[in-house]
Amino acid sequence: MAKVKALKCRECGKEYPIEPIHVCELCFGPLEVVYDYEEIRKNISREKIEKGPKSLWRYIDLLPVEEPTVGLTAGFTPLRKAENLGAILGLKNLYIKDDSVNHPTLSFKDRVVAVAISKAKEFGFDTVACASTGNLANSVSAHAAQSGMNCYVFIPANLESQKIYGSLVFKPTVVAVEGTYDDVNRLCSEIANELPWAFVNINVRPFYAEGSKTLAFEVVEQLGWRAPDAVVAPAASGSLITKIWKGLKELVKVGLIDSMNTRVYGAQAEGCSPIAKAWKEGRDFIIPVKPNTIAKSIAIGNPADGMYALQVTRESNGDWETATDEEIIEGIKLLAETEGIFTETAGGTTIAVLKKLAQRGAFKPDEVVVVYITGNGYKTMEVLEGHLHHTVRIKPTLADFREKILARVD
Amino acid sequence: MAKVKALKCRECGKEYPIEPIHVCELCFGPLEVVYDYEEIRKNISREKIEKGPKSLWRYIDLLPVEEPTVGLTAGFTPLRKAENLGAILGLKNLYIKDDSVNHPTLSFKDRVVAVAISKAKEFGFDTVACASTGNLANSVSAHAAQSGMNCYVFIPANLESQKIYGSLVFKPTVVAVEGTYDDVNRLCSEIANELPWAFVNINVRPFYAEGSKTLAFEVVEQLGWRAPDAVVAPAASGSLITKIWKGLKELVKVGLIDSMNTRVYGAQAEGCSPIAKAWKEGRDFIIPVKPNTIAKSIAIGNPADGMYALQVTRESNGDWETATDEEIIEGIKLLAETEGIFTETAGGTTIAVLKKLAQRGAFKPDEVVVVYITGNGYKTMEVLEGHLHHTVRIKPTLADFREKILARVD
Repeated sequence: MAKVKALKCRECGKEYPIEPIHVCELCFGPLEVVYDYEEIRKNISREKIEKGPKSLWRYIDLLPVEEPTVGLTAGFTPLRKAENLGAILGLKNLYIKDDSVNHPTLSFKDRVVAVAISKAKEFGFDTVACASTGNLANSVSAHAAQSGMNCYVFIPANLESQKIYGSLVFKPTVVAVEGTYDDVNRLCSEIANELPWAFVNINVRPFYAEGSKTLAFEVVEQLGWRAPDAVVAPAASGSLITKIWKGLKELVKVGLIDSMNTRVYGAQAEGCSPIAKAWKEGRDFIIPVKPNTIAKSIAIGNPADGMYALQVTRESNGDWETATDEEIIEGIKLLAETEGIFTETAGGTTIAVLKKLAQRGAFKPDEVVVVYITGNGYKTMEVLEGHLHHTVRIKPTLADFREKILARVD
Repeated sequence: MAKVKALKCRECGKEYPIEPIHVCELCFGPLEVVYDYEEIRKNISREKIEKGPKSLWRYIDLLPVEEPTVGLTAGFTPLRKAENLGAILGLKNLYIKDDSVNHPTLSFKDRVVAVAISKAKEFGFDTVACASTGNLANSVSAHAAQSGMNCYVFIPANLESQKIYGSLVFKPTVVAVEGTYDDVNRLCSEIANELPWAFVNINVRPFYAEGSKTLAFEVVEQLGWRAPDAVVAPAASGSLITKIWKGLKELVKVGLIDSMNTRVYGAQAEGCSPIAKAWKEGRDFIIPVKPNTIAKSIAIGNPADGMYALQVTRESNGDWETATDEEIIEGIKLLAETEGIFTETAGGTTIAVLKKLAQRGAFKPDEVVVVYITGNGYKTMEVLEGHLHHTVRIKPTLADFREKILARVD
């Protein structure tokens, strides 16, 4: 593959061939895909991309896959101007990148999984697996079904029931581990050392993570080939933010945009905010925490890419903010009531953080601000119990309608 | 609006100006939008459409709206080739048109509501409403929030809780009516006569229903400007099938395709199949039934457009088939396990019917068959209880993994 040069350790720089490995044998640093941008620059153009498939695969020139075989319809989700929410927050150019309708399993994970499983097939694996807080398990299960591979997904046993059903329906083996996500992840790392399985976010992680770059690519294209002034995204492992930043820089490197001056803001739930806490305390290292939040999909206490996410906010002049459980629910409701978009707890966190940032003047009123909504509200519906208005029950008669509804309106 | 000529009664042909009315005052027949196809033909082209927005609004030349103001991101959902399901059914060219990821509320209703509420705004309404089996209520609530309009949604009181929450989160008034959908619909018709509200599927119905045509338009475009040999779609009121057919014919009329020879097949739940029953008994009129099925989103016992849906299958050499509740659940699972798409009961019905039709030789192996998946599985998750595999619970240790998972695999 001419476009991809090697895997390279983010810490010591040692290079490795393109294989299902993820850790440097010298220094234990994480491996990352390195591209030949000069070569890519020759072959890529706005016109070619715009003529490409209506999916993330229009960006195949910047992804580490030769021929996609799974997840052919993932990505290229709507970017919508949020006039109502923007008016409330004093932002004239607020946009929502809405992966709550990503295909097929309603979260941004469909992007990374499409890339990871296509790559796993290229490597010749017949079994895929993952450690997941729910959305990833849904997506791996669905794409494994599509691709006819064996599938094992590992989740914390206390997950929202919607997310468990949303995996089971695709008939993988769902392993409910008694512990936190970090326990699940540790166990999966051990298993990945023993078995010839493609754990999409462990041994295939360098390829998997590249899928998140498409969230940067698509936004720039959808804004008319212009990088936003600021983006706000949730952080769990910290990988998403790191890859959005990598994606923005790549667009400049291959000449699709002339320049980019985007500030990257990170959102975490107060009850699991190891990255935001490090930022506020001026640390460049992460102290793991034990998660205690309703935002289970971003409840990673020991974030693998936390350090790199900190670097991104530093390099981009961004910032970090957190949201309490109560603020997360208010965030879900605010987005629904103003923009008609129903997101899950991760999205509620991001909206709550966007609001706080706007209120403390992080953005100029005219700046183009993009907020990433990464998951769907139907998956965490149980957190809304007791927080919504009630239905009004009536008999099927005009008289009852007048008494119970119209009288109330007047 | 040059493209739209009038409203016209489907029964007696009397014409009316473009107003929020839906019934002929002479014969009580339903009104339908009539276009000036000669005029449209002059302005429309494949190239113009392909350059249009990535939403159903790329087809605005064939929709009765001047300037869309709501639902700007609805439609243009994926069409995916279903290799695995096709192999099982002996169909080499089976495609899934997947509105389970429609924006923003995960069903095809986002199409009709985008059109209806944009039109309601043009008419000057400040309040929107609907009679709904759930998906429509979700969509009207979301789009009303987007557009800042007042909103009342009327549903049968026994709806799936997911669908009720999926409306409440947008903060409309949700009226739970003690009765069937048909009771709800009758009540809403009475209210629509009294109040200046835009009931999207009653007084604005002629405009609303046109939105479904985009399911035909998009499929033809996504197939490379070629009409499928057969389509399979679910039927509740019968409107969807009627409009898919109208859409296909319009593409020929305005010159976007040369010809069309598509057979239209209708799917109903056995427990509420007044249209399929009329078909099987050779009647051209509908005898209303009392619904008794888990497929609540298509449980309309007295379908407003049932008669016209029958005409479509007659005219197109199509057919009707039904699915029992058990077959519906098997249909949901079959689609998930083979294609990684999680649909709701309506989609389960459609897949079960597709399977029956394929088994009795309705399609030739090489024919291009498109099946319409109209809603998302997260909305009717409760029907799956007891029908899925269980999770396997383990401690976060390799030893427990070996004992409970690996031992099982060997």
